[in-house]
Amino acid sequence: MNLNEYIDLINKKLDEFMPEKDFPQDIFKAMKYTVTLPGKRLRPIMCLESCRMFGGNIEDAIPTACAIEMLHAQTLIHDDLPCMDNDDFRRGKPTNHKVFGEANAVLAGDALLSFAPQVILKNSKNLGAEKLVKIMEEYVKYAGAYGVIGGQVADIEAEKNWKNNVFGLNPEELLEFIHTHKTADLFKLPLRTGAIIAGADDESLERITDFAQKLGVAFQISDDILDEISTFEEMGKTIGKDKDADKLTYVMLYGLEESKCKLVCLLNECYDIIDKSEIKSDVLIEIISGIEKRARIK
Amino acid sequence: MNLNEYIDLINKKLDEFMPEKDFPQDIFKAMKYTVTLPGKRLRPIMCLESCRMFGGNIEDAIPTACAIEMLHAQTLIHDDLPCMDNDDFRRGKPTNHKVFGEANAVLAGDALLSFAPQVILKNSKNLGAEKLVKIMEEYVKYAGAYGVIGGQVADIEAEKNWKNNVFGLNPEELLEFIHTHKTADLFKLPLRTGAIIAGADDESLERITDFAQKLGVAFQISDDILDEISTFEEMGKTIGKDKDADKLTYVMLYGLEESKCKLVCLLNECYDIIDKSEIKSDVLIEIISGIEKRARIK
Repeated sequence: MNLNEYIDLINKKLDEFMPEKDFPQDIFKAMKYTVTLPGKRLRPIMCLESCRMFGGNIEDAIPTACAIEMLHAQTLIHDDLPCMDNDDFRRGKPTNHKVFGEANAVLAGDALLSFAPQVILKNSKNLGAEKLVKIMEEYVKYAGAYGVIGGQVADIEAEKNWKNNVFGLNPEELLEFIHTHKTADLFKLPLRTGAIIAGADDESLERITDFAQKLGVAFQISDDILDEISTFEEMGKTIGKDKDADKLTYVMLYGLEESKCKLVCLLNECYDIIDKSEIKSDVLIEIISGIEKRARIK
Repeated sequence: MNLNEYIDLINKKLDEFMPEKDFPQDIFKAMKYTVTLPGKRLRPIMCLESCRMFGGNIEDAIPTACAIEMLHAQTLIHDDLPCMDNDDFRRGKPTNHKVFGEANAVLAGDALLSFAPQVILKNSKNLGAEKLVKIMEEYVKYAGAYGVIGGQVADIEAEKNWKNNVFGLNPEELLEFIHTHKTADLFKLPLRTGAIIAGADDESLERITDFAQKLGVAFQISDDILDEISTFEEMGKTIGKDKDADKLTYVMLYGLEESKCKLVCLLNECYDIIDKSEIKSDVLIEIISGIEKRARIK
């Protein structure tokens, strides 16, 4: 499958998995709203593609892939809250709390954190209990304080006083921690679970984790660059906020040119991993080159 | 074990399970703060006792019992937020967002939702994958939109306009829905998982679920009564708010005397289930009689 075919499949399945009429409808509507906003679906695509390239059946990875997109939506809903980034737009539409109110947005996020693994447990019974437990372990690790939430906490703290060695880290270390957990961890989760579903061995898991780390940090650097050079229309969210807020970003710390160099370097390492290992994937190559185009380094 | 021995064991284990020094410390401190506030520990006690009375080993249920207390703490942290109940005190101490700020309180709650199942998955491997999957299924069901969050959403909606048949339910039906999901579901989760860990059969599971439903609704009615007749010192939180807010409660709908009657009736049904089934538990009897004393119906 190519990227667009994957996106169509994922959108169809997300729509099926997200109930609209269950009771109380308000919460299910709020959950479905953000999950089904149009998006690149990078994370679920990575899960399906990882499963395929390690010899698994794509069908087996669909519930997990969709669950990871739900988890991603959860992070967006809570990140956008007034007490966090206070964003009014996401993917070109009003943010969840703007439509459903703040209390419902908090609860919709909470509910997604349980609904996502519920989708996996309910629809992946054919994988067997051992694999389900492994997938749950990955999910709770990367979704929690050792994963994406740790990154978000560090990000918030960094906004206030990154110049003062937050958490005992210098700004370079802090930025790496934030990018690793806030972004790369949500690339590791789909690439690793896809591989686990396919039955990949430990060595392959290590390699795909390394790939995910590099691709995730590269993606975040491209995001930082875009916040500098892009427009609202292009991004579907308010632009230039990082700069205005004197926020710790790659561009802030290293400047635009060095950020672009670092990005090129990381993406070349990603190409390299694909060239030199058993990982063969036109789709992953397309994702890498998409990041290049996005940050206008090609 | 009696109630106090259980509480000591649970407090010791909660302290062990909740890390303080993991990175970033801010989030782990915020998580631990609310989880380790002194409390009755009813839910984890129910899990351990359910495991014991169905012939299981209490040790096997400790991670699950503690995880359910963490989930309970999560609901408290988010319920207390300014956009929800906006409470400044909980268990006699400042609420989480008062100490750590609103953003960290949202994230600490989010993190607990993944940390709790992580504690189970990491520390209950001896139960085997099949049982672990069953416990995860129970956890995500009762923690999510079909469980406690559904109850919370209905509760918030009811605050605004319960007189107008919210969600197509009349006030009596709505109140039952709220009590079932907001309170009884968090009694079902520990009593059912304790039984599952012990290997109880389906019939026993049904009976303990019925018991949990009745005890949970009774507990919530006693809470509504206490909001009417109690003091801040007794409850450790602001009192009389329900009444001031014209909130949908048992006392509001049926009056104080009929609420007491309903409570007595439900608790007698709980005693009955213990009398007439294989469920033999002094601890559960002590919990029932504790609710009687609390609501001063004895």
